[in-house]
Order: sequence, then C-alpha cells, then structure tokens
Amino acid sequence: MTQLELAKNGKLTSEMETVAAAEGLASEAVRARVAAGTVVIPANINHSNLRPIGIGEGLRVKVNANLGTSQNEPEIEGQRARLEHALGAKADTVMDLSTAGELDEIRRALIAASPAPLGTVPIYQAVIEAISEHGGLEALSPDKLFEVIEKHAADGVDFVTVHCGVNRANMGELEKAGRICGVVSRGGAFSIAWMRANGQENPLYAQFDRLVGICREHDVTLSLGDGLRPGALADATDRAQVAETMVLGELADRARAAGVQVMIEGPGHVPLDQVAANVRLQKSLCKGAPFYVLGPIVTDVAPGYDHITSAIGGAVAAMAGADFLCYVTPAEHLGLPNAEEVRDGVMAARIAAHAADIVRLGDKAKAWDDEMARARADLDWERQFELAMDPEQAKKIFRAARQTKAESGNDAPAIPEGKQGCSMCGEYCVFKILGAKK
Amino acid sequence: MTQLELAKNGKLTSEMETVAAAEGLASEAVRARVAAGTVVIPANINHSNLRPIGIGEGLRVKVNANLGTSQNEPEIEGQRARLEHALGAKADTVMDLSTAGELDEIRRALIAASPAPLGTVPIYQAVIEAISEHGGLEALSPDKLFEVIEKHAADGVDFVTVHCGVNRANMGELEKAGRICGVVSRGGAFSIAWMRANGQENPLYAQFDRLVGICREHDVTLSLGDGLRPGALADATDRAQVAETMVLGELADRARAAGVQVMIEGPGHVPLDQVAANVRLQKSLCKGAPFYVLGPIVTDVAPGYDHITSAIGGAVAAMAGADFLCYVTPAEHLGLPNAEEVRDGVMAARIAAHAADIVRLGDKAKAWDDEMARARADLDWERQFELAMDPEQAKKIFRAARQTKAESGNDAPAIPEGKQGCSMCGEYCVFKILGAKK
Repeated sequence: MTQLELAKNGKLTSEMETVAAAEGLASEAVRARVAAGTVVIPANINHSNLRPIGIGEGLRVKVNANLGTSQNEPEIEGQRARLEHALGAKADTVMDLSTAGELDEIRRALIAASPAPLGTVPIYQAVIEAISEHGGLEALSPDKLFEVIEKHAADGVDFVTVHCGVNRANMGELEKAGRICGVVSRGGAFSIAWMRANGQENPLYAQFDRLVGICREHDVTLSLGDGLRPGALADATDRAQVAETMVLGELADRARAAGVQVMIEGPGHVPLDQVAANVRLQKSLCKGAPFYVLGPIVTDVAPGYDHITSAIGGAVAAMAGADFLCYVTPAEHLGLPNAEEVRDGVMAARIAAHAADIVRLGDKAKAWDDEMARARADLDWERQFELAMDPEQAKKIFRAARQTKAESGNDAPAIPEGKQGCSMCGEYCVFKILGAKK
Repeated sequence: MTQLELAKNGKLTSEMETVAAAEGLASEAVRARVAAGTVVIPANINHSNLRPIGIGEGLRVKVNANLGTSQNEPEIEGQRARLEHALGAKADTVMDLSTAGELDEIRRALIAASPAPLGTVPIYQAVIEAISEHGGLEALSPDKLFEVIEKHAADGVDFVTVHCGVNRANMGELEKAGRICGVVSRGGAFSIAWMRANGQENPLYAQFDRLVGICREHDVTLSLGDGLRPGALADATDRAQVAETMVLGELADRARAAGVQVMIEGPGHVPLDQVAANVRLQKSLCKGAPFYVLGPIVTDVAPGYDHITSAIGGAVAAMAGADFLCYVTPAEHLGLPNAEEVRDGVMAARIAAHAADIVRLGDKAKAWDDEMARARADLDWERQFELAMDPEQAKKIFRAARQTKAESGNDAPAIPEGKQGCSMCGEYCVFKILGAKK
C-alpha cells in the first residue's frame, strides 16, 4: 500500500514518523495531512537507501536540484559529481533529467547513490529512444511510454513529472493564446509534437488510470507537470496556463482517490505581482495539493543571474503557499550548469525557502536567524561561520577581504585582536562603538 | 534656488527635463512631483559633471552602490576602480563611505570622476577626525560636525545621509526594545555614543534648521538616515524603529517647507511578510517621500549571499513603493567587497529594481523583457546577449558550458549550426521541437 493509502487507513508509517521528527510535528499531524493529500512523502518502495522527507502543508519548504546528462556531456561521472555537489549544498531532492548517454545505467547509479528522493521525467527517455530507434518522436507508442514509466518505477524513482494536462483541449487554448515563447516545458513540447504528428490525445491524459496504477504499485508520487507553463513574463497567467491547472486539479482528485500521492508543478516566468495569485489559484483548484514551482523567474532579462530572479519569485511563491522550489542556476537559459553553478542554484533556492519558512513556521524557522544575530552582535566569527547556510563561502569571503590589508602593507590602524570587526568597518564596527552584546 | 523651490515656483529646470526624457514622462509631471516632494533630483549646484537622475513616484527604481576606503584599504586607487566597476555595472548613484585615508581628497576625486549623483555620510569624517584629533568621538563638537557637512556640500555632494531621527526620546525606545543587535547603523551608533557621552541631544536633530540651511544653499538632498533600523529579523518593526520613522516624517515636512529636497532611509533586516508593511508605513508617515531602502535582508543566516537575501527583500519593497535600493554585496557582514562583489551587488539590486519596475511601470519596463523573450524564442543568441542585463556574464556562461563538449571529444550528436539550442537541451530545445517563432 502507498503512504496515502496507509494514512487514509489510519496507519502511521516509519516514513511519517521520520518526517514528523524532522519537522518537529506530531506523527499524527503528518499522517492526517498525507491522508488529506496536502502533504506527500515521495518514497518509492524500491528506493532502499532513501531518507524520506515530506513536502507540503506546515512543513519546511523543500528544494530540488536538477541533474542529468546532455548531448554536450553524456558521461555519468559528471552527474555523480553534481549529485554530490547538490547534496553537499543540502538540496532536499534531486531530479535526473538525463537526455544523453546510458539512460538506464545513469538513473540506477544516481538512485543508488542518493539518499534524497529522486525524480525523473520519463517521457525524455521514451522520446529519445523513439528517435534513436525509429527516427522520430512521432513513432513513440503509448505502450512504450508506459513501459519506460514502469521501468523508472521499478528502479526506485520516488516521483515522476508527467505532463498529463497537456491535452487536445488545452492545445487549442495554447494556439489561441498568441504567446511569445509558446511552450517551454520540454516534456510539454514533446507531448504536443507527438499529438500534432499523430492526431491523437496525449496518452498520459487518455490513459491516466494506467499511469496511476503503475504509481500505486511502487508508491511513486505523481508530480503533475505544467507543460503549458509560461516561459516569458508576457505569457504568464493566460488561459492556456489556467486551463491546464484546472485539468491538473481534476487529475489530482483522481490520483488521490486511487491512493496515489500527487503534487502539482507550476510556473515558470511570472511578473512579481502575479506570483502569489498563481499559488493561491493552484492551491484552490488542486485542493491544497503540494505545489512545486519552477522559479518563478520575475524578469526575463537577466540570463547569468537566474538563480537570483528565481530566488525572488520563489520566496514570494513559498510565502504564499508553494511548498517545493526547483532550483534555477546561473546557467539557466545558457547551458548546463557546472559544479559551482549547481551550488549557487541550491543556495539561492534555500535562501528563498528559508525566507518563506520564517513567515510560514515562525520561531521554529527563525530560531536559526536569532542564533546568527546573537553571534553577530557578539562578534563571534567562528559561531557565525558555523551557523552560516554556506560556511565555506562565508569564510572564503571573510578571509579574502582580510588579505587585502596584509598584502597592502600599509600602516592603517591594526584590526584589534579578539572580538574584532570585519574589514568593512574595522574598529568603527557598530558592535565595538556601542559595546558588544551583554 | 533648489530644484524643490524652483518646482514650487512652477519653473521647469534642465534637470527636470533630463529626468523627464530619461523616464519617458512629461517635464511638467516631473516638476509637479518634485514640488510635491514625491520625487527628488539630487543635484548639488557644485557637482559640475553631473548627469541628473530622479528618484521617486512613477520613476524607474534606482540603485545605489557604496564605495569607500576602510582601515583595511585606505588607498584612493581601489575606490577609483570600484567607482568604475559600479558605474560600469550601471549603478544609478554611488556613496562615498570612506573611513580611512585622505578623506577630503578621496571624496573630491570621486565627485570629479562621477557623473552619477554621489552621496556621503558626513558624520563618519567628523567622528574619525574627532578621534584622531582629540582621542575620542565624544570630543566632537556640534560646530565641527556642521563644518564637515558644509565642506561636503561645497564639494558637490548630491545627497547626505544624516541620522537626525536618533534623538534622546528614541534612544529611550531603543533601550526598552530588548533588541538582539541593537544599533547596526554606523552613523546611528556614532550619534548614540556621542549623546551618551555628552548627555546632550543629537545636534542634527536639535539644530535641524541649521542643517537644512546648509543643504538649501547648495541644493543637497537630505537622506534622513534610519539610525535605529533593525539589524536582525528579531529586531524588525519594533517601537524604536517606528518612533524614529515618525520623527523622520516630521523632519521631512520641515525640510520641504524650507525648500530642501528629502528622502527617507529604511530597513534593514526584515521578515519577508513585513517588508511591504514597512514601505507603506513610511510612505504614509512621510507623505510620499522617496524611500531609500538598505536591503531589506529577509534572512540573517546567509552571509556570503546577502546580495540575494536583499534582492528578495528589495524587489518586494520596491513593488510596494520603495524607490531607491542600496545595493548589498556578497561580502556584506563579512568584509569590504572586491570588484567582482561590487558587480554582483549592483546586478542583484538592478534585478530587484527591474522586477518591481515591471509591476510599477507596466509595458514601459516590460518591453525589455518582451524583446528578450522574442530573441529567446527565435534562438537568436547574439540578440539575447545584447539585451542581457550583464552581456559579459551571459556570454561567459554560455561559452564555458559549450567548451565541455569540445574538450570531452565524445561522439554525441553535434549541436546543429545556425539556430541552435544551448548546452542544456541541445537538439531537444523546446524551440527546435516545436519550431522557432514564426
């Protein structure tokens, strides 16, 4: 039975207890929310080394890091390194979005190496193999697509992104929408290209119960993808996007009724004043299902800094109720991220998540900030570094700024020993002027 | 006469016309807002090479970059380089916060080199000279403080931060507040230390009319500093902070009545759900005076990433009405920023400002995003780089991600010539799957 079925039957699982302990909640509260579908615990029964986490109502906002090969870099080694970087930076989950190399082998290796829940987008592999075997994605058969999903489920994938809401009705809305960037979801684009070529309904929509059946068997959490998410501010919150969200709400009802955990994915590129409204719309249409947002990116003009554009949107989204932030790295819109960019992406998303947790969870989250503030007022640098979200980065900047003095060899007043100011204010540090904290 | 006096007399100045042209507004609209005090044009009559800008109602949100020597790095050369970096990254204004070296010489050199409005915090120099001449800040005489302010004004400083609201009554509120971090404004800390030592009222409060007189003579814009701004989330929006803002509102009335332009500075470290409320409170208490925010930083725990914590707070503040964002660099709380950190700080603040401009100004701001979206959909990389907020950074990441392939020498499918996907998706680029924009 799935976590959802067990929860509905009043059963407390070890996964629920682990989540409750991590979140400082009563196990029963976690069980009740899993039963209600407002919390998911992505925990495939075949993912043996998993450390389960919860996503949703009243829990800490979680952060996902995307991994995966591309044609540019098909080797598995690079992905092992990225997994380490992502987990080292404390991403809560990872997704294997590989599109090149030995896809089965890469996925299995990453699952085996990842104690964090791992997600995939099975249509990538299905399409890539259809192209490679038959020369085009239109040759993909629905059976083949479901076989790939079954394989992922059997391998231990904890959640799958499936673009079930990209159906023929919504495609019509899309065509009328007059978007600048059209479809920017890769899975959504594959689905539409397939439907156009074959003149048939999206199999993930038409055969949704078959998908649900596979997920139920292995307790794979559905992450209902937003194939029609906006890829430009100009395209945000249009009828195509909202029509898809409405379909996802219907499908979420069906998945839950069948005992399958489900979360919903959301935009995308969204003007800052529409972010909260998007979250509230999703929460209402999907009856409180956990919301997994990709960004939102609040301006299109800053490639190279999209970890920042998305941290702004992500913080506001999470404050409004989004539960799960997909990281965006500085390389977004430009290329596959390197290790440092993976770290930057995870940190930016963690900052957004924590800024929202302070609002959502109050003192439970803010106690960390208060500890840091006390260490700061006390000029206790070692404690500040310990408490920093990224201790290495904080130490690196502190030390580099100090070195300037040593190298310059000037005769400026020496920075005092002991409780000393940093290189910005030196002896004019406010905590020295007025005396450090009692 | 000052811009404010001229505006009140119905006179259109060349500065107002420059601002109107830059903002796409009628000159008369700018004049009316300057007259009403909701827009300031910091333009000291002695700053000869100034390119004036406007700050406030209905204008593009502006970004300030802090420069200035410290005991760690007292040489002027480093500050010239930082000025170039800040202006190269398109900061709208700069502040010289020097606290070491030849302060007069540094300030004059930076004013001469800066076509952007330049601000200072005169109390720094006054206190540093009092310490150096008399051995302690308590020896600073009010006359000496006003002499320093006069010198800055005569040199061409366009705006001065003056912590006039740190008065004895508000000090009492501070003592009752039980803050973790107390006072984190350096000017505020100097003022309080001086008042404690001398048992007298803050001269900038007690002799506010004298200050206003100096500013009127040279048309220096007052930036009423928030000496009691919170330096920790735990200290945000307390009675000490609000009491000071109320005093600043009174003083703003008096400055305007005397023909002196005025803006108000604001927090600081603020939980995300209190940011908009802080802005609205300031706008109401200070009758629409332009609001200059320092941050707000929305979590205390991310030293090394405070350009991001402040971009989140700054975007939300500016959307709620803040008009002017002081950059925060990754080195905040750790040391004096290097050139790269200056650029990162300016870019993060520009992103926050632009994300808010899209909401405040609509299509006038969003046209840039729409252009970028069209270039993206058309896979026109050259145009994307041209349009990027930081073209060099975007190109650098794009190229570095490409190199991986060249170096790896694998036989994965080549990335197509012409309209090609980036190294993340390659041939599976959504714009290739569904065809680039018509």
